[in-house]
Formats: sequence, C-alpha cells, structure tokens
Amino acid sequence: MEEWYGEKQTNDVMISFKTSKIIYSGKSKYQDILLIENETYGRILMLDGTVQLTEKDEFIYHEILAHIPLMSLTEPKKVLIIGGGDGGLAREILKHSVSNVDIVEIDEEVVNISKKFLPFVSSSYSDRRLRLFIEDGAEFVKKSKGKYDAVLIDSTDPVGAAAVLFTEEFYRNIKNLLKKDGIIGSQTGSPFMYPGHLKMAYENMKTLFNTIKIYTAPVPTYPGAIWSFTFATNGDLKRKRTRNFRTMFYNEEYHDTNINPEFIKELVH
Amino acid sequence: MEEWYGEKQTNDVMISFKTSKIIYSGKSKYQDILLIENETYGRILMLDGTVQLTEKDEFIYHEILAHIPLMSLTEPKKVLIIGGGDGGLAREILKHSVSNVDIVEIDEEVVNISKKFLPFVSSSYSDRRLRLFIEDGAEFVKKSKGKYDAVLIDSTDPVGAAAVLFTEEFYRNIKNLLKKDGIIGSQTGSPFMYPGHLKMAYENMKTLFNTIKIYTAPVPTYPGAIWSFTFATNGDLKRKRTRNFRTMFYNEEYHDTNINPEFIKELVH
Repeated sequence: MEEWYGEKQTNDVMISFKTSKIIYSGKSKYQDILLIENETYGRILMLDGTVQLTEKDEFIYHEILAHIPLMSLTEPKKVLIIGGGDGGLAREILKHSVSNVDIVEIDEEVVNISKKFLPFVSSSYSDRRLRLFIEDGAEFVKKSKGKYDAVLIDSTDPVGAAAVLFTEEFYRNIKNLLKKDGIIGSQTGSPFMYPGHLKMAYENMKTLFNTIKIYTAPVPTYPGAIWSFTFATNGDLKRKRTRNFRTMFYNEEYHDTNINPEFIKELVH
Repeated sequence: MEEWYGEKQTNDVMISFKTSKIIYSGKSKYQDILLIENETYGRILMLDGTVQLTEKDEFIYHEILAHIPLMSLTEPKKVLIIGGGDGGLAREILKHSVSNVDIVEIDEEVVNISKKFLPFVSSSYSDRRLRLFIEDGAEFVKKSKGKYDAVLIDSTDPVGAAAVLFTEEFYRNIKNLLKKDGIIGSQTGSPFMYPGHLKMAYENMKTLFNTIKIYTAPVPTYPGAIWSFTFATNGDLKRKRTRNFRTMFYNEEYHDTNINPEFIKELVH
C-alpha cells in the first residue's frame, strides 16, 4: 500500500510525498520528528509536520544563507549558527577558511538523527572546527561573550517558540556579539505566502544596522517556493572574494547583482 | 466536507488545494478541464490534472515569457503566441505598443472557459489588436505566411501531444515566420525536476539561432517550482527599452543580468 506524508503549507495548500520508507519517527522534548525517504527528493526531515530540508533541494537554502555573508567578509574566522542542528549550514560555512563554527541548537534529537541518517548535511560534525551547544539560542545570545564575524539564524518560521528569533531584542543581542563590520543573516520566510514575516524581520534589523539586503531564492519544498534571506551589517555586503569551492546555486553574479522581484521591492522600501 | 484537488507533479510528489468551489469541470475534445477556487491561490485552472495557472502566481510566468523578448526589440509590432488560450501571455504583450497579437490555441474550450471565469487573464480578448485562431500550432506554423517580431510558445510540457512543440522541425518552421532579428521564446519546463526537457529545447534551438539564453524564475505551483524559459534569435537579447508599465516580477535588472543558478550552467554549455 502506498504511504504518503505531507505538509499543510497553509490552511488550504498541501505538499505530499510518497514514502518508500519511514526512516525515523519520534517525539523529542520539543517537537515531532519525522524522517522519510522519497524517490524524487531523497531523504526528507520534517519537524512538527513542516519540511525542514530535503536531500535534493537543501543546497539552495544553505548556500545562500552561508555564502552571502561569508563572501562579504575578507577573512571570516568565527561564525555562530542559531539553530541549524542538521549541520547543513555549517557544511557550507566550513568551505571557507574559518577557524570556528559554533552551533547553538535547542533540540539534541535533531542533531542525533541528522548524524545518524543525514550524512549529506551532518558530515560537517566530523570537522574539528565545529562546536555544538545544546541550548536555547535566544538565551545563548543574551549571555555569550564571544565575538563573531557572522551570526546566522537557521530557524523555523516565527510561529510558536521561534517567534522570539525575529524580534528586535534578539537582533540587538546578536549585534553585541558581532565584531565591527560583522554580519547578521537570517532566513526570513516566504515573501509570497507570509510577507509579514519578512517585513517584521526587515524592520527590526533596519533599526539596528546601517546596511540591510534581502536575497531571494527558490526552495521548491517550502511554502510558496520563493524564499527570503535577510542580511544586515554596519559594514557592507559587497563580495570580497571569488569562490575556491564548488556550489550548485550560489554564484558571484547572484551575489553582486542582488536582484529581487518587483513585488518584494514594493513590500519593503 | 473538505474537498481537495491536486496534481501529481511526479510519481511521488503531489500538490493539493482545498477547494471552496468547483467553478467548472468538463471534458473538451482534447483534455479534461477543471477550474477550482482556492483561498490562497485564487482560481486554479487544471488541464488533464496539471496546474496551468493560478490567479496568485500566473504573473511570474507570463511576465518572463512576454517581456524578455519584447523588451529586447526596439519596436515590436506583430507577435504570435502558440497555445496561451487563457489570454494571460497576451495580456502582458499588449502592454507594449504592438499592432497585432495572434493566438493559435488548439482547444476552444480553454478560451471559452477563460473568458467566462478567468477575467484577470482573458481581459486581453477585449483588445482589438488580438486575433484568435483555433488550430493546431504545429500545423499553423507550417503553412502561415505572416512575419512576426516574436513567436512565443506557451505550451504544456513535452509529453503527449505537446512533444512536437519542442522539436527542431517545429522551431525551424517558426524561424521561417520570424522577421530578421525576430525572437523565439518558449517555456522549457522544470530544470530541477525534468532537466531533459530544457536540454532538448536548448539543443534544438541552438542549431538554428546564433544567440540563445535561458532565464529562470520561481513558479510556486509548478513541479519543482524553479521554471525555465528559453529565448533564441539571430539578433540579440539585450534590453532596448525601459518599462512604461507596471510588473510584479520582471524588472530591468533581471533582464540585464540573466543570472542562472550554477546547476543550470552545468546542464547546458
């Protein structure tokens, strides 16, 4: 018998995947975790019924969130990731000659399951430059004393527990952790389906930083498929280097031109 | 009771829409036609179970397919559309000061239903510059003697009857209808899900024209969400003008920079 698992992306739109195998299904302290196998998208990680990543399309999200800020820095050394326990964002960051990547993930189960079943992202955990903190990201940035070249927020959408990760207070605490000219970056949701999420993040970052830019990229398995990423800094977001590593989505032209659809320009200005 | 309608985008991935109202359901000489109402995407037209357009996201597809070729011409006057019976592509073309738009649509029912239920695209039919031919597009381009500034293919994917619309012979017949420096353009499918469709179209156009370019844009309700459009000419595809009309996706930077993800560059070169 065919088994299908899906996500209700809105109240009335659903994406579903035929599943050849349920790899893991369980409940952590924080959320339901479901890991399935699908022929088209490969392994798919779902948290509380929401697609977090698929093996086939995760490169787009992770490349944009990592390489826009990192390539905007001449010599980035220390990077902090809030969330991102699967390791995919760290994998992209570790392509740069950084000395340190700290991951602050609230849910240890996400890390364990990724290590066990998602080697294409969690391979980064074998890199000795990586440190893992199992902790609430909002609390971590309040008390941490470290200084970072970039702090990147790889969170779920601002509903429920993750809502705090889109507030001005949270961004202010991150600002305190940034070196001069350091960069904050965050996934800021679907500008097509939930323009309010992007607007909220944009307005809150804008009050704290001189330079702010939105990048968009398609993530086929996310609601509305068009995804937004917002970056801010008191330095600049101009590209400082050329890749000496391979990517599948990001390239120098994408970074340099920062083209957004007209409807996004109308959303924030 | 909730009613959901969906499209199997691949054998194992499905998108579904909760339907507040079935506006039309019937069978034409060529295909099943279903028109539903969905809160998020508005009216959705499905042919043989495949999403053709939704009220919310059709602007992206239609703007790219119309404005890349039309803005690459100094003074486009006559445009031929193969397919596109809904009128959406014509709507965008008629924003330019063209004298003539000919639509060759095989299925009269698509036109009738669009006129009746999809005014946001079919409003173009009230423009006197538009002529409609109910005819097989492949046959039309064999025998037509007209000359066009642009011929644009707004077809379904190259499976079944539409496969002929991706062949070298079809493109050769179109070339004969083009003025010197005229432009051919076609939707060329999902480079992410069906890279073979894009490759086929690209290779076949490339043997006939000196200049060829792929543009990509996200269309949330299409399989794989990343969509490709291929344009070819013996002139060039450089932008000649600035918009004097409003768009929601297309803009001058998008046209001028023609940025494609790395994986598309690797696909065709």
